[in-house]
Amino acid sequence: MSETPRRKIPEAALSRLPIYLRILVDLAADEVTQVSSEQLAELAAVNAAKVRKDLSYLGTYGTRGVGYDVQFLMYQIQRELGLNQSWPVVIVGAGNLGQALANFTGISERGFHIVGVVDKDETKIGSIVGGVRVTHADELTQIVQSKTVSIGIIATPAQHAQEAADALVRAGVGSIMNFAPTVLSVPNGVNVRKVDLALELQILSYYEQCRTNNHLASPTGDNTGAVSA
Amino acid sequence: MSETPRRKIPEAALSRLPIYLRILVDLAADEVTQVSSEQLAELAAVNAAKVRKDLSYLGTYGTRGVGYDVQFLMYQIQRELGLNQSWPVVIVGAGNLGQALANFTGISERGFHIVGVVDKDETKIGSIVGGVRVTHADELTQIVQSKTVSIGIIATPAQHAQEAADALVRAGVGSIMNFAPTVLSVPNGVNVRKVDLALELQILSYYEQCRTNNHLASPTGDNTGAVSA
Repeated sequence: MSETPRRKIPEAALSRLPIYLRILVDLAADEVTQVSSEQLAELAAVNAAKVRKDLSYLGTYGTRGVGYDVQFLMYQIQRELGLNQSWPVVIVGAGNLGQALANFTGISERGFHIVGVVDKDETKIGSIVGGVRVTHADELTQIVQSKTVSIGIIATPAQHAQEAADALVRAGVGSIMNFAPTVLSVPNGVNVRKVDLALELQILSYYEQCRTNNHLASPTGDNTGAVSA
Repeated sequence: MSETPRRKIPEAALSRLPIYLRILVDLAADEVTQVSSEQLAELAAVNAAKVRKDLSYLGTYGTRGVGYDVQFLMYQIQRELGLNQSWPVVIVGAGNLGQALANFTGISERGFHIVGVVDKDETKIGSIVGGVRVTHADELTQIVQSKTVSIGIIATPAQHAQEAADALVRAGVGSIMNFAPTVLSVPNGVNVRKVDLALELQILSYYEQCRTNNHLASPTGDNTGAVSA
């Protein structure tokens, strides 16, 4: 179905699709077969009109009074996000975070296949991480080209992240996920997504502060972990 | 200022505050002193009216034609999120991810202080992680109570995450950040935030798919990494 031209999904709507997908996966695991836009909205902490609008970009509108078919909606989002194909991914940085990511089942289960892990640290080279042998960062271009890698993950310390980004761009990688707490500069046309490991902590501290101060605020609604940013 | 009662911030607005904060930190690093709601909106991939509404919960409205003072807005968001105080945090799981988190400067820089790392694996106990000695999971309650820990991080494999959550709740922790790719069940009143390490990868694969298929879509606007979910 990838041959049908689709219109572009706005960035804000796009960033919510993986959240809906995760909620749907959880619902499916609980053997829920139908979900309303109101339920999805509550679980995703947005409003129902926005859910309907976001999903309309997939060409899907649900059924009034019934909602969306969970399995079919999962399929549609996965197709839209390109998750029905396998993506070779390379990780730069074989430290704790790089190793954790290479071993993370939540990544491999969703169609991302770690085909290379590189580092500059000679003591790490040759070790096996997530089933892949760590190679020297100098071999990055060779890995990217031989395995047609289009997505790179930066799991280096902050001070080496720009160098890693430059190397990925030189190697021909067009999309970069950056875990280092720093802003990268890349040429136009290269996508960078920054992951902030501390973001959710800052939301928890809000609630804890409210609790301590006996504010009006208290955790509301769903607290089973389905909602996240 | 924490004695002034404030109204509760809706969950959706709350989840955007750390995103605005990160953008402001980046702007401040570039010595930008003023920012308009339009600029903030573009960098956060939301619309400007939403930015103004979100920030109005802080009691801040910007100045027409000038925008917001970057430093003051940072201060206001930090205060609102409780980041102007120190939060003792305990990590359950001393594997690669737990070690990466304990060492992650992006966490300690924002007022979160790792005071304990626990594991059940005897080979990990006694090692030093992020400046903290790893102790046995049986000591969790003692750590939580002696260090008045209110926030716990679960960095275990998925199959041990529920057990870790139960132990944190028993120890008296009210807020849990869960990195394991699983849904947790906790009593009412306990906050759980789930972090999905693969979420951003799924947005990158969308763009890569678009690129491959020569769709209309291409990366737009900011690609310097300031925007993220």
